[in-house]
Amino acid sequence: MQKFEKKDLKKKSVNLSEWYTDIILKAELADYAPVKGCMVIRPYGFAVWEKIQTFLDGLIKEKGVGNAYFPLLIPEKFLNLEKEHIEGFSPHLAVVTIAGGENLKEKLVIRPTSETVMYQMYKQWFHSWRDLPVLINQWNNVIRWEKRTYLFLRTSEFLWQEGHCAHLTEGENREMVLWGIKAYEKTYAELLAMYGLIGIKSQTEKFAGAKETYSIELLMPDGKALQGGTSHDLGQNFSKAFDWTVLNKEGKKIHPWQNSWGFTTRSIGGLVMVNGDDNGLILPPRVAPIQTVIIAISSGENQKLAEYIEKIQGILEKSGVRVKSDNNITASVGRRFNDWEVKGVPIRLEIGQKEMEKESVTFARRDNFDKGTVGIDQIEIKIKAILGEMQSLAYENHRKFTLDNTYKADSYDQFKKIMTGKRGLIRAFWCEDKECEAKIKAETKATTRILPLDAKKEKGKCIYCTKAAVNRWYFAQAY
Amino acid sequence: MQKFEKKDLKKKSVNLSEWYTDIILKAELADYAPVKGCMVIRPYGFAVWEKIQTFLDGLIKEKGVGNAYFPLLIPEKFLNLEKEHIEGFSPHLAVVTIAGGENLKEKLVIRPTSETVMYQMYKQWFHSWRDLPVLINQWNNVIRWEKRTYLFLRTSEFLWQEGHCAHLTEGENREMVLWGIKAYEKTYAELLAMYGLIGIKSQTEKFAGAKETYSIELLMPDGKALQGGTSHDLGQNFSKAFDWTVLNKEGKKIHPWQNSWGFTTRSIGGLVMVNGDDNGLILPPRVAPIQTVIIAISSGENQKLAEYIEKIQGILEKSGVRVKSDNNITASVGRRFNDWEVKGVPIRLEIGQKEMEKESVTFARRDNFDKGTVGIDQIEIKIKAILGEMQSLAYENHRKFTLDNTYKADSYDQFKKIMTGKRGLIRAFWCEDKECEAKIKAETKATTRILPLDAKKEKGKCIYCTKAAVNRWYFAQAY
Repeated sequence: MQKFEKKDLKKKSVNLSEWYTDIILKAELADYAPVKGCMVIRPYGFAVWEKIQTFLDGLIKEKGVGNAYFPLLIPEKFLNLEKEHIEGFSPHLAVVTIAGGENLKEKLVIRPTSETVMYQMYKQWFHSWRDLPVLINQWNNVIRWEKRTYLFLRTSEFLWQEGHCAHLTEGENREMVLWGIKAYEKTYAELLAMYGLIGIKSQTEKFAGAKETYSIELLMPDGKALQGGTSHDLGQNFSKAFDWTVLNKEGKKIHPWQNSWGFTTRSIGGLVMVNGDDNGLILPPRVAPIQTVIIAISSGENQKLAEYIEKIQGILEKSGVRVKSDNNITASVGRRFNDWEVKGVPIRLEIGQKEMEKESVTFARRDNFDKGTVGIDQIEIKIKAILGEMQSLAYENHRKFTLDNTYKADSYDQFKKIMTGKRGLIRAFWCEDKECEAKIKAETKATTRILPLDAKKEKGKCIYCTKAAVNRWYFAQAY
Repeated sequence: MQKFEKKDLKKKSVNLSEWYTDIILKAELADYAPVKGCMVIRPYGFAVWEKIQTFLDGLIKEKGVGNAYFPLLIPEKFLNLEKEHIEGFSPHLAVVTIAGGENLKEKLVIRPTSETVMYQMYKQWFHSWRDLPVLINQWNNVIRWEKRTYLFLRTSEFLWQEGHCAHLTEGENREMVLWGIKAYEKTYAELLAMYGLIGIKSQTEKFAGAKETYSIELLMPDGKALQGGTSHDLGQNFSKAFDWTVLNKEGKKIHPWQNSWGFTTRSIGGLVMVNGDDNGLILPPRVAPIQTVIIAISSGENQKLAEYIEKIQGILEKSGVRVKSDNNITASVGRRFNDWEVKGVPIRLEIGQKEMEKESVTFARRDNFDKGTVGIDQIEIKIKAILGEMQSLAYENHRKFTLDNTYKADSYDQFKKIMTGKRGLIRAFWCEDKECEAKIKAETKATTRILPLDAKKEKGKCIYCTKAAVNRWYFAQAY
């Protein structure tokens, strides 16, 4: 049971960031862990992650990728083999120096990602074109040390899946890289009801060790972008660094082409930011652990009412709706309405004497507070229709919000004006020179987010230096 | 593809231990990791773990326990709070002393188990009888440092689930402790086709910090016992050590009663030991990632045969059989038979010109090598019947083996003779004095395994000191 009053809730309409943390704690999605920078994912939050896992793991298995488990601890020397990789990760490593009561001769790092340990094994296992493609994924925990925690969005430890495939040809490899980022787009769109933009990262923003990184970017209500998942074309960088070769069909040694792609618990942070209001969370039905909550409108024990509620619950469960009945009559009806509103359950059913007599239920939607009554014979159809509608509407709303807050800027003044105002995504020409990118970031906090997959070359001038540019990149301030 | 010949396989009938490691590597269940004491679980082995997770997680959810995620890293001081707990675990800890490029002021240990960090949060979250019972589980990785690896059975890192519940009364707590161990018994019996004995551990063998520990013990082919899962009655040990109280219905502060229970990847080690022969693994059908493999009997491309195989595969898939077709005609038929035999796939279907013409398939059972032919219209029924039979038979065989190798010993000479011979489980009176237990262990390598749940008090004499004893305990040498 919650221990706070509705009036104590922070308001999303007043301060997104304060609301965000407050609602995660009060909806019992997560909490701060005793170790700085870490978090606990509570059962309600973890149930959301399980929905994400089930959906995405289904796509992964459908693609023929198998799950495996590689060790948490990696010898430090493995990370050193790929130069950019170690440079990118070394400031964020947690290092084990004592184990089994002894000082270790060789330090072990907790995986920040598993390229190095996995590819060391690939090199041992796979020697021929017959062994390719290698299609392996793992669901695990990683550590990238952070000092300040932003629940879900920035934590020292997070959960994710990391897919690591290897192919005989560059073309096949590229196909898999794109499959990865599109699987994330599908997960956001169909499960999390969020509209994301996919494209390629600049050389500055790419993954440490990758040739190219693809990302899905999601616009948050404060006009900042969230990187929601990445798929990396590693080229032959790692197979060369690790000196891994396989014999091709002609009997020649070649370095396999590799890719890796990851999707993390960060996605839950994005989900929360986008879906909620001053009353709490509003979970899209497909990802909601509880889709419908039944509240008994009664101030005391009522056997007949309890039986009627059980009947309604049975009908809904049988039709596949995730339903929970809150029959805790030691709490007031108002209190119970409030608790489930904060947790973002899509539909509330109110069932009291009146409903029982009329063989009906009263329903209330969490997104727009519409209320109505439906007879018991129509309840399955009605509830399913509302859940479907809420899911589509949530996606449409986020899509509209994203498009409404995407601007074309053709002068740096215009660019700065947007970034000091309500922010959003800016499409602007950039010459692709690192210096311009760095200066724009220093002056506006905006970074290059992506060049869209379907971008067409145009003739333009760099928004910063005005030199010739051919691509309009997406810029935004980012989480 | 395998790179070994059948003659290179170690023989189970000659040396169990050598066979065990060899077959795990060759069936590609797992491999040694670069860090000593750690292992990699390869996709085929991990698919077995996923089957176990699905089954056991189903039982856990059915019981109303929710999954969560608590952090990997625990401040060292938390572990120190419960005296027996830290004494038990401190020799096995991996310690992080550097993070984010700095030496940490406070050392962090990688969880060997999560009692301490979880109960610190429980204390923060739960304050009233209304908040009880707390029913939380997590699936994660833990580290308990070991120097020598025995794949699956003893590794520094392993995967498991750890359930941690808290109750208002001792009785409710006890009920949950027993539920835990019975859930493990069910998982072994119904999924892994293994017969286990459940009972209580001696004070020496119990979990560090528990009041009582229940265990399931499984007899391995070499007559040694494997502890296959444990459920701990923590009493109020931790709630007192952490000073966690809740208000009961009368408004009085009480220390909640707690339990924890864990089931690990070690179970896969037991599964392998018990189920296999000189030709490789024999996976019980329910836990087999692939239940039926189809081998095309053809030395070249054959479009019609491919279509016929696809049709058979479709029929089996539709009826819920996990089926794979190996159409790699670059490998000989014998080679392919061999590969899938080693991997323990329960049924092999052979389909060639002859079968196609007669609209039939030839099947071969992995357990007893029975072969036969069945028409396409009967295939679903036949395959399902064989799978069901193999599952029951595997369980019955292990049950019989266990009972056949369980002895009553009434003299220490008899006891020693068994333990220096073919070993097994010995039921013997023990006075429950730690000294006798230690001496028996030193002299025979046998430890007390359990006192069975349904044990009846008898009048007897301790097998070692001959003083009065009331309980026949199970003794065995243990993994």
